[in-house]
Amino acid sequence: MKIPQDRLNRYVGMRRDFAEEEYINLQPIQRGGILTEEARRAILEFGDGYSTCDWCPPKTARLDMITDPPIQQFYQDLAEFLGMDVARVVTRCREAKFIAFRMLGGAGDYVVLDSTAHYSSYIAAELAELRVKEVPNSGPPEYRVDLEAYAAKIDEVKKETGKLPAALLLTHIDYLYGNLNDAKVVAKIAKECKVPYILNCAYSAGIMPINGKELGADVLTSSGHKSWAASAPTGILAFNKSLEEKFTARSKMEGDLTKRKFGAKELAMLGCTVMGAPLITLMASFPEVVKRVERWGEEVEKVRYLVAELERIEGIKQMGMRPKMHTLTHMETESFYKVSETHKRKGYFLYDELRSRKIVGIQPGLTKHFKLNTYGLTWDQIRYVRDAFFEIAKKYGLKIS
Amino acid sequence: MKIPQDRLNRYVGMRRDFAEEEYINLQPIQRGGILTEEARRAILEFGDGYSTCDWCPPKTARLDMITDPPIQQFYQDLAEFLGMDVARVVTRCREAKFIAFRMLGGAGDYVVLDSTAHYSSYIAAELAELRVKEVPNSGPPEYRVDLEAYAAKIDEVKKETGKLPAALLLTHIDYLYGNLNDAKVVAKIAKECKVPYILNCAYSAGIMPINGKELGADVLTSSGHKSWAASAPTGILAFNKSLEEKFTARSKMEGDLTKRKFGAKELAMLGCTVMGAPLITLMASFPEVVKRVERWGEEVEKVRYLVAELERIEGIKQMGMRPKMHTLTHMETESFYKVSETHKRKGYFLYDELRSRKIVGIQPGLTKHFKLNTYGLTWDQIRYVRDAFFEIAKKYGLKIS
Repeated sequence: MKIPQDRLNRYVGMRRDFAEEEYINLQPIQRGGILTEEARRAILEFGDGYSTCDWCPPKTARLDMITDPPIQQFYQDLAEFLGMDVARVVTRCREAKFIAFRMLGGAGDYVVLDSTAHYSSYIAAELAELRVKEVPNSGPPEYRVDLEAYAAKIDEVKKETGKLPAALLLTHIDYLYGNLNDAKVVAKIAKECKVPYILNCAYSAGIMPINGKELGADVLTSSGHKSWAASAPTGILAFNKSLEEKFTARSKMEGDLTKRKFGAKELAMLGCTVMGAPLITLMASFPEVVKRVERWGEEVEKVRYLVAELERIEGIKQMGMRPKMHTLTHMETESFYKVSETHKRKGYFLYDELRSRKIVGIQPGLTKHFKLNTYGLTWDQIRYVRDAFFEIAKKYGLKIS
Repeated sequence: MKIPQDRLNRYVGMRRDFAEEEYINLQPIQRGGILTEEARRAILEFGDGYSTCDWCPPKTARLDMITDPPIQQFYQDLAEFLGMDVARVVTRCREAKFIAFRMLGGAGDYVVLDSTAHYSSYIAAELAELRVKEVPNSGPPEYRVDLEAYAAKIDEVKKETGKLPAALLLTHIDYLYGNLNDAKVVAKIAKECKVPYILNCAYSAGIMPINGKELGADVLTSSGHKSWAASAPTGILAFNKSLEEKFTARSKMEGDLTKRKFGAKELAMLGCTVMGAPLITLMASFPEVVKRVERWGEEVEKVRYLVAELERIEGIKQMGMRPKMHTLTHMETESFYKVSETHKRKGYFLYDELRSRKIVGIQPGLTKHFKLNTYGLTWDQIRYVRDAFFEIAKKYGLKIS
């Protein structure tokens, strides 16, 4: 069908409404996904459709067998970097979880997961036809997951179904408060109970040092566009030898008439996965990612500094566990909410005030609570953000201690 | 874990081994995926991780609800362009097929498909736990699918299982010979038998005019990186109103403890799908794609011309149905094979000869059969390719009629 030109014009010259280099972007899910210079170069080189596949080896014809660009080598380096045996790049972290659930469980089986898990963990379980059993958290203000309770939840599942859950899933850093969960506690329970253990490192691997073996994970999932300076959509699925046969099981399908078989193809991956721009940016940024995780200590220092400064404003308090162990931060800002009640722009005043100071990424309209992420900001930018909040607080008569 | 610098250096300065602008690329799966200029601009603007999600509406928080960039509008325009009611962009055409199979069938159900279907159609069925029943083709040299036989295969399934197949799948243009299958023939059978009908337009939609309603498809799948001038990985899943409820069913999952629900999220999509570079290139190229499908007639003229010219070389013959109805072409080249038997470079001589003439994309090593695709080549380039093959033929003493 024909589409009128005026509607087509919408797709010409699409731009973000701010230039990343002119603004400080505090968007909670975006800080770890900003491309490196090398990735920006590579995305143009390999932007065209199947351009990563120029040298697909005819006999195996599989993404992870391509050595030019060095995709096969990258899969190995990626696994090693994460302290896991095998790695695959998949389309999203949620797909990595779906694959793990799909290959570990059957319809009606349970997965035991923390109650601060991302929605995509629940939905991945649902699409794999699993049920969930949630591990409680302490509620406000800490929302601390009761990690020891995984054991009791496994028992509940056993009583209810007569068998073990298909998997345990722990969210390493939760998306709401940026709490760091001690992966080893759950690893111990998983090992004792002999249940496969999935550690969701969507907000940790790629920005923090992660060693899956040390943390005791059987499966490690992560998100390239969230934490690896890669374009969306990219996910990482890494696993240990013990699960390799299951996760990389080849297709057993056979054409009933032609007897065609596809025995080189990995079933759960649907053959090839991310054959383009997101994969190539993940690879191009990898050398910088390997370096940047070593600077994690300073990232934590910066966020702690900013939180301490912002808490000097009356009515502002960091939510989640203290001290901060991650740059993703949830602030409760009752005093800004009070300002918004009488402001003609209502809740949007805060966004406006920040934006006029070249700061974006705080969700427009929110003043009672909001999330921010300081990952990768310089000390100067951190101080600039602090000063901006102080200015806004003063403008609206809030006290700063 | 630390990765040694010499291994990291592999990811610095990655390049394709030919510059697209200096070579003629005949790669069968790449011609339709070359980015437009507008897409090359957009991929840099939206290369960063979640950059398409700056304006994600907080309440619905779903990719297809974002209006800046105009993703919501694009989904509507895309559906309309394809003559379907609803469209979703998913990570790959194979994922589109998996979703369709997953939502239409249950474990052990059948899908009836053509025996020239791509491997990903079989594997998508396998992951959805379906079985396949193949519709025969005529074998060499035409490999014509016996479209009327879909009816008999449905009967076979009914006899064997007591119920209808979950779906029929027809590959609109097959990947091996570029044969065009008459979609309406199968549509009529699907309608009569009341079986949902999936038309896989991986090689047609985006380069040929396609109207799903006219073709009688209930579901239409396609590949952005194959045929829509988009980066990988991108797939299109379009469907009619009658299937909307099934395909866009929302998550019903509920946390057993927290009672958290995710009712805004579409289950089969796992929530959001392609939140980045591949989607934005698909959108940026869309105005050109809408125009280019109108030039399909000339594309067919060009391939027919080249095939007729190449067949003047002794021992060279086009395989598949005649005359060509698509630019993807399979050539049988017995005479080049004979040359290769005594050539010191064996089968690689043809690749070398073409490459030295700035032509790439014919699989290295192949001489007996190979595939090529002329989509989007200018007449001058077509004649240049013809001349190159003539030169090579003459060099090795082959007759040209």
